[in-house]
Amino acid sequence: MKVGIYGATGYGGMQLIALLKKHADVDIVFMSSKRFSGKLFSEIYPKFSGKIDGILVDEEEAMEKLEFVDLIFLALPHGISMKYVEKIRAYSKKIKIIDLSGDYRIKDVKIYESWYEFKHTSKGMIKDFVYGLPEIFRDEISLSNYVANPGCFPTSMILPLYPILKNNFLKGKIIADSKTGVSGAGRKANESFLFTEIQDNTYAYKTGSHRHSPEVVEILGQLTGNKIDLLFSPHIVPSSRGIYSTIYVSLKDQVTMEDIEKAFFECYENEYFIEIVNHIPSTKDVNRSNKVFISYYYDEFSKTLILYSAIDNLMKGAASQAIQNMNIMYGIDEKKGIDFDLYYI
Amino acid sequence: MKVGIYGATGYGGMQLIALLKKHADVDIVFMSSKRFSGKLFSEIYPKFSGKIDGILVDEEEAMEKLEFVDLIFLALPHGISMKYVEKIRAYSKKIKIIDLSGDYRIKDVKIYESWYEFKHTSKGMIKDFVYGLPEIFRDEISLSNYVANPGCFPTSMILPLYPILKNNFLKGKIIADSKTGVSGAGRKANESFLFTEIQDNTYAYKTGSHRHSPEVVEILGQLTGNKIDLLFSPHIVPSSRGIYSTIYVSLKDQVTMEDIEKAFFECYENEYFIEIVNHIPSTKDVNRSNKVFISYYYDEFSKTLILYSAIDNLMKGAASQAIQNMNIMYGIDEKKGIDFDLYYI
Amino acid sequence: MKVGIYGATGYGGMQLIALLKKHADVDIVFMSSKRFSGKLFSEIYPKFSGKIDGILVDEEEAMEKLEFVDLIFLALPHGISMKYVEKIRAYSKKIKIIDLSGDYRIKDVKIYESWYEFKHTSKGMIKDFVYGLPEIFRDEISLSNYVANPGCFPTSMILPLYPILKNNFLKGKIIADSKTGVSGAGRKANESFLFTEIQDNTYAYKTGSHRHSPEVVEILGQLTGNKIDLLFSPHIVPSSRGIYSTIYVSLKDQVTMEDIEKAFFECYENEYFIEIVNHIPSTKDVNRSNKVFISYYYDEFSKTLILYSAIDNLMKGAASQAIQNMNIMYGIDEKKGIDFDLYYI
Amino acid sequence: MKVGIYGATGYGGMQLIALLKKHADVDIVFMSSKRFSGKLFSEIYPKFSGKIDGILVDEEEAMEKLEFVDLIFLALPHGISMKYVEKIRAYSKKIKIIDLSGDYRIKDVKIYESWYEFKHTSKGMIKDFVYGLPEIFRDEISLSNYVANPGCFPTSMILPLYPILKNNFLKGKIIADSKTGVSGAGRKANESFLFTEIQDNTYAYKTGSHRHSPEVVEILGQLTGNKIDLLFSPHIVPSSRGIYSTIYVSLKDQVTMEDIEKAFFECYENEYFIEIVNHIPSTKDVNRSNKVFISYYYDEFSKTLILYSAIDNLMKGAASQAIQNMNIMYGIDEKKGIDFDLYYI
Repeated sequence: MKVGIYGATGYGGMQLIALLKKHADVDIVFMSSKRFSGKLFSEIYPKFSGKIDGILVDEEEAMEKLEFVDLIFLALPHGISMKYVEKIRAYSKKIKIIDLSGDYRIKDVKIYESWYEFKHTSKGMIKDFVYGLPEIFRDEISLSNYVANPGCFPTSMILPLYPILKNNFLKGKIIADSKTGVSGAGRKANESFLFTEIQDNTYAYKTGSHRHSPEVVEILGQLTGNKIDLLFSPHIVPSSRGIYSTIYVSLKDQVTMEDIEKAFFECYENEYFIEIVNHIPSTKDVNRSNKVFISYYYDEFSKTLILYSAIDNLMKGAASQAIQNMNIMYGIDEKKGIDFDLYYI
Repeated sequence: MKVGIYGATGYGGMQLIALLKKHADVDIVFMSSKRFSGKLFSEIYPKFSGKIDGILVDEEEAMEKLEFVDLIFLALPHGISMKYVEKIRAYSKKIKIIDLSGDYRIKDVKIYESWYEFKHTSKGMIKDFVYGLPEIFRDEISLSNYVANPGCFPTSMILPLYPILKNNFLKGKIIADSKTGVSGAGRKANESFLFTEIQDNTYAYKTGSHRHSPEVVEILGQLTGNKIDLLFSPHIVPSSRGIYSTIYVSLKDQVTMEDIEKAFFECYENEYFIEIVNHIPSTKDVNRSNKVFISYYYDEFSKTLILYSAIDNLMKGAASQAIQNMNIMYGIDEKKGIDFDLYYI
Repeated sequence: MKVGIYGATGYGGMQLIALLKKHADVDIVFMSSKRFSGKLFSEIYPKFSGKIDGILVDEEEAMEKLEFVDLIFLALPHGISMKYVEKIRAYSKKIKIIDLSGDYRIKDVKIYESWYEFKHTSKGMIKDFVYGLPEIFRDEISLSNYVANPGCFPTSMILPLYPILKNNFLKGKIIADSKTGVSGAGRKANESFLFTEIQDNTYAYKTGSHRHSPEVVEILGQLTGNKIDLLFSPHIVPSSRGIYSTIYVSLKDQVTMEDIEKAFFECYENEYFIEIVNHIPSTKDVNRSNKVFISYYYDEFSKTLILYSAIDNLMKGAASQAIQNMNIMYGIDEKKGIDFDLYYI
Repeated sequence: MKVGIYGATGYGGMQLIALLKKHADVDIVFMSSKRFSGKLFSEIYPKFSGKIDGILVDEEEAMEKLEFVDLIFLALPHGISMKYVEKIRAYSKKIKIIDLSGDYRIKDVKIYESWYEFKHTSKGMIKDFVYGLPEIFRDEISLSNYVANPGCFPTSMILPLYPILKNNFLKGKIIADSKTGVSGAGRKANESFLFTEIQDNTYAYKTGSHRHSPEVVEILGQLTGNKIDLLFSPHIVPSSRGIYSTIYVSLKDQVTMEDIEKAFFECYENEYFIEIVNHIPSTKDVNRSNKVFISYYYDEFSKTLILYSAIDNLMKGAASQAIQNMNIMYGIDEKKGIDFDLYYI
């Protein structure tokens, strides 16, 4: 397929392009960057010299190339993505879109607007976007032209929680304490993410107020029919890559460990990218892969089930999951171009 | 005072010695190391050449110097400390002891033995040791000859929880999700803590089964008269120093934020080393200091109070707290030799 | 081909196995580990669970499997490798060997013994081993059954120096100031490479006395017919992977920048894995790839040519170069199984 | 003394203020910041809440407070400092100035202008500034009102080279390969110094063209009367703090190791902050201290003397050296307020 990428020079866009370049079925028609248009991609990322040398185009040039494109990836900030969706859609209804921003993940526009704090200007399109978590919405993705790629934290929370909620095992609230590396903050000049600030530092931020919270609540609520009571508590740890979610839930009285084991087995036994592991996972386990490592432990003393999940935020949390969605949309092998976990060591 | 140190070359012992060397009232009579006896301290830590050059003595030589000593610091592993306590006590009842291991922190010897998995061979001494958390047990410390210096994690959990439990605000269980740097694992050759293993890595370990758990349960239970329901969930993050505890609790219905504020104020308004800060703290805030930074946040949605605390695990979590205890035992300025937080930047 | 690996659980062995597992032409017949025999490979490296689960065998079991093997990789310490070479050779002269240790790199056994400080017990085999730097000795490798895989530092030094020396441009001595991450020290419990010791630390070690020095001197001397005057000055920097060599040389008077450019072009224009780049390279450029990035700069003021080279020490410096050699020995595509530099971002 | 600080919120300014706050003889009259004026210092650095809460003033307010000030520290960028020097001088000739920028370090204004690439607008003042390297220019500093605080790299190069050059031992050129942490780049939003860019990365930059090069050449030339042939080759390593210089020099034929030892002894035997150590130093040795650790090694093979030096770039390379200069200017104990190397562990 012939693809175009908007937002080519952020970490998500860069990771996406590096993967797409090696994907046998993909031709990159254009890479667009507002900030760096006119430069070579390899001027921004010199390691790609001689390999990915295309010129970064501006919006206007990108529009002119739309006629040659089957699919667009939007690796743009929230609020910007929706403008491009409208433009692309106005140009042609045939171009597929995978949006990596949060603009089309939340179906309840009031919820979106209250958490993102600006007006949604593409309301009519929201319902056309499928939530791109393949292990749960594979069928819907395969039938859709528009996919909202999940947030990195939600990917790490929804996947371990899904078997619990689907089977109605949950009692009471969910506390998700997540730890993320700083590449998730993007390749933006920001004093807070200078090496000197991050090394040897750990801290919480946006407890209960992070925009990924309503995304999880809506998706899980929709799957279970219940209102989900979630406390999402993200933290920065001194890493580049990786999200680690430790999730604390209480179970209904009659639920046994066999029930839990069976629930995970039924949901994920055929899922190549999800591994229910016997050890406590670590972010290094999944570094630079599309894998999700999950395990769980029941603490008798406090009657708490602890779920652990580890992903690479730029891969399963962004770029490789977007390609997984693309593969599904085109009916090709879902693993194509993103199955190299053994290499990433 | 004249002091001797056992376990001089671990990170805790080294930090202790570096601080004691600058303490105006302290003379170091001996530094003992089983592994490195006969070498200079500065052969193990070359940066101290010309400054701390004393020869590391073995157990026998240390015993011979006990007559010149007022106070002993034990920076030894669990199970070893108790043997030295018995020997020192057999030699003289006048020598004060500050023990940095877990051997005398837990008063219920059955609990100790079930969590530490070996026999306690100094049961008679357990009751003589005061739990050395000055902000809560200052009076007892000032009257005692034997102090059990708290664990690093417990220091980071008990201090933020104390105002809540003392005022009987708690409802239900406590979930403490802690993140620690790897210096807490000590200066032992261990593949798991090689730079290559830790960089860019985050993971949980010993959820619900860490030995610091019963220590917190007993101390808080004793303060409140209630059985405490704690889930302690430690994690390794890629740092050298620092412990960050994010603690999730539910409050009784009538408790207001004013009550919480008042509770913290009353407990800690005069505590120099505890700062109730308005921002979410970070481990860098307290790096290389004896300070504890605490803040809290109430999440309306999930009706959860989140407590944040940050300490330096080798300082307030070990060495500088031991010196704080020494200062209290001798009735001198509690801050002496450990008040340099502004320098640590 | 059917391969066996000795020393399977060190970083080099692990990296090799992870790559070999994905190599379409390779079957792994056995993985041997003295220390961990009887365990699963995935017990040592849990991230490979379900993917590389073979049992680690001891020496005896490995010997029994030699009959099924075409090629052996030795990822063993210096001095141990030579013993296995003798045993394998005694068993069969048909089994090819790629040795990742230093035992067969240096042809002058007196030099070897004086730098490695023990007797060489396999002298007769030394001459049978070809130095496995494909970009220089490709023909010899293709004809040989025995390859001595180059050291990580020598790979980073010989490749940028080769065009200079081959063309007889050098005047005077070579100063090579190299910076390495700590994975090169291997996965051995060693206090010096604990995270706490390495973070925020940089230091020189073994200036002029590192065993990789005579390796470079011999190889370059052999290529040029001259005695090479090299000062090799390695440093540890707080990284996991990557070697960066900054090499200072003086040029003969008549040598121009055009000469230099032409020399590099002639040596490397067809070398896929060597890139003469226009920017100053960084170790991140080649992270997890088999590439060598090289650039150079002439300082008019001091009349010094500075050569920069960056490699991944576990890849081009060890495992992927070993596979490159294997590919050449079998006459298959040299890039097979090791050409994924775009993925490594 | 009553001091004012311009450029209070950069890393250098922050470090300076933290140290000055604890200096018993110093009152901070104002802290000025163009960018953050009107905010509290502790809003920029929350860890100082309750300790350093002064409001950051703008230029105008700072000028109004000049009448209450004895000494000004300028922690401003090159080119900006000179404007403030002129203003302060115009206001009063009695106010002492310690300038941490490069504006007054180089006496040859043509050299300055060609390396810094803009016009010097305060030429008349250049000669009034003494180069503030106390171990070499203590007497001049003690008599001067104006001190140009040395650059971080030059401090790490001049001090180890001084005994060699002073004694006329040098033959030929000097190659200085330096490795620095990224705090030296300051607290400026810059994508190149994001944690994600720096972790696991090492690279050279500005070889032969760094502005600290002419500073070293001029100072050493002035001390020896000879033109110095220096190749300065800086590198970024993934650290926050610390500069490590490895310096390669050739010696005149008759120079012996005894001569070298004697030269270092004579220059530095009474220098508290300089330690000629027997081990190869590391940046961790001097982390957060005003110390310089130096050692040297003679490589017989290549006939090269290698000098190693380690400093903390924000301390001896900037803030604590500025205070050392202040102490000398006021005739008080040179170590006052900056002697806590034992704490920094």
